[in-house]
Amino acid sequence: MSTPNTTLNVQLAERSYPIYIESGVLDDSARLKRHIKGNQVVVVSNTTVAPLYLDRLLAGLDPSLQVSQVLLPDGEEHKTLATLEQIFDTALRDNHNRSTSFIALGGGVVGDMAGFAAASYQRGVSFVQIPTTLLAQVDSSVGGKTGVNHPLGKNMIGAFYQPQAVFIDPDVLDSLPAREYSAGLAEVIKYGLICDPAFYEWLHQHSADLLARDKAVLREAIKRSCAAKARVVAEDEREGGIRATLNLGHTFGHAIEAAQGYGQWLHGEAVAAGMVLAARLSVSRGWITDEDVERLVTWLSTMSLPTSPPVDMSTASWKQHMLRDKKVVDGRLRLVLLEEIGQACIVDDVSEAELESFLTPFSTV
Amino acid sequence: MSTPNTTLNVQLAERSYPIYIESGVLDDSARLKRHIKGNQVVVVSNTTVAPLYLDRLLAGLDPSLQVSQVLLPDGEEHKTLATLEQIFDTALRDNHNRSTSFIALGGGVVGDMAGFAAASYQRGVSFVQIPTTLLAQVDSSVGGKTGVNHPLGKNMIGAFYQPQAVFIDPDVLDSLPAREYSAGLAEVIKYGLICDPAFYEWLHQHSADLLARDKAVLREAIKRSCAAKARVVAEDEREGGIRATLNLGHTFGHAIEAAQGYGQWLHGEAVAAGMVLAARLSVSRGWITDEDVERLVTWLSTMSLPTSPPVDMSTASWKQHMLRDKKVVDGRLRLVLLEEIGQACIVDDVSEAELESFLTPFSTV
Repeated sequence: MSTPNTTLNVQLAERSYPIYIESGVLDDSARLKRHIKGNQVVVVSNTTVAPLYLDRLLAGLDPSLQVSQVLLPDGEEHKTLATLEQIFDTALRDNHNRSTSFIALGGGVVGDMAGFAAASYQRGVSFVQIPTTLLAQVDSSVGGKTGVNHPLGKNMIGAFYQPQAVFIDPDVLDSLPAREYSAGLAEVIKYGLICDPAFYEWLHQHSADLLARDKAVLREAIKRSCAAKARVVAEDEREGGIRATLNLGHTFGHAIEAAQGYGQWLHGEAVAAGMVLAARLSVSRGWITDEDVERLVTWLSTMSLPTSPPVDMSTASWKQHMLRDKKVVDGRLRLVLLEEIGQACIVDDVSEAELESFLTPFSTV
Repeated sequence: MSTPNTTLNVQLAERSYPIYIESGVLDDSARLKRHIKGNQVVVVSNTTVAPLYLDRLLAGLDPSLQVSQVLLPDGEEHKTLATLEQIFDTALRDNHNRSTSFIALGGGVVGDMAGFAAASYQRGVSFVQIPTTLLAQVDSSVGGKTGVNHPLGKNMIGAFYQPQAVFIDPDVLDSLPAREYSAGLAEVIKYGLICDPAFYEWLHQHSADLLARDKAVLREAIKRSCAAKARVVAEDEREGGIRATLNLGHTFGHAIEAAQGYGQWLHGEAVAAGMVLAARLSVSRGWITDEDVERLVTWLSTMSLPTSPPVDMSTASWKQHMLRDKKVVDGRLRLVLLEEIGQACIVDDVSEAELESFLTPFSTV
């Protein structure tokens, strides 16, 4: 099966932008030139990705551009306001003005920070996303959510700020460590679970090819994931409604990440365990079946993804972190559950008591 | 002369909002209630303003609200990312969710920081401005410019983010120190200079009343200043064009503030000296006259405002700070000058050589 090169569009009126999914697009000079307006560029990457791909990207930039580089430390634990300052320091030291463009070359952490820096630098400059992890390609680079973590909660400081374009080069995934690749697959499976039962089945059938990083299967998976995300974001940019379904597993997952300390579990790993919890809670509501959950658990396990939360989380810790979630509105926790496989829904009637009783089997005292 | 209570509107489609200018509006319960949507509030103030007005504001808030307080240190030197974190820390510690509202009670520094915190907290929550200095009432509380300083430049990190409402109580100016009051008058005079020659003359005629803080004259001055600002912001929210004229004197002024260290000169003082420089450069272009400048200088002097920059700035320091300004676009410095008194224009043809030769008489080596 072969997938042609693809351009998707995120339809957001004057903030619309293309997603290019294409081998070699990483250093496609003509396209880069089209999406960089001024004569200055700040490339934000990290110390892991830069040695692999920074030179290629730089070679693709117009030689007339003034280019500055910021290499951030790698890892979710560095997604902080303090690290963000490095981007501002460099941009100001090199006299970047309001017509500069920021380019994010890296995974979700780099993209989230470069995006928030672009949203905030001189009250907003252009930026381009070049995601280099599967998770960033199928999720975080699309849709304009940017930000940093706070010790008390994930992504608590940030902005909705759309890029000028997203450049997805599936070939760069060849260098991705297996653990990070699996973490990205968790977000791919999420799209099937929340809105596309046919995609869920297709992914399940092609599970071995996916794990083997078969190019054609992988490109199709990226394309369908991005298309789903683009559709949802176009409908609900600022998460007033349906966009919240993209957070399946995330309220549980964010609690795991915050409680364990950022950087212990990968985001996609926490989401995998969180999706299983959401699925189990959906069973307790009588919506999906135990068999649905067991099939998901078995599948995630073959990808070396965790299917239950860390054993050392207390119910107090669960409650503390979940009740601080961004999806808490006026004291009511809003959770994404599954009415069926391929059909997510948002509930706001999970009481503290129900939550506590549900989580007790997964918690220490 | 008496000014009735006034409500102005900033017309920005779905982001439109009212400016209430009224004695006692500080603790007008009904209006506060109308502009606070959720059931949580974070009041941001500083250690100078809070002892004077915080209790009154709190008494005006609906008793059913969960209220948290953040008292920042007073002064421009604290307008930093590090201080901003105090707001996030408090909001998260107290479990404020995405439906919370931030209230800024204070001067420009408090308003800029609370506004940027509101723009960034959980990617954006509501906020209300209650400005307590003349400068904040006539300028910084209106128009949605929020942000913090960076050691290398003023307001370099921030967002365009509009409040839900602005509550201007002229009575609170009774407690304002004379130096801060004069600094605010500099921005009032600016509106006359850039777009309203009749207002400029009216202010000049009422100069003694203004200095004496005559209530009726003061309210009229605030009203006309806010009306001018609202008009310009409605036309050009993100400063693509005419809004830049509001920065008369600011490019010089920001350089003074950054070079001296934030908090040495008040913002309005730096703007006063900067406006005189802009006026002198306008004379050198043959637009306004030496007499126009001398009249302005004499007038500002009666208000104890500086009319020339600090004596210890070097030409190198001027150039370093001015060329990093947000109004530099693609390497060209854009400056606001005066074609005539009451008519500002934006020029981008001031060469480095012209700037250097112009600034030399005002600089050390």
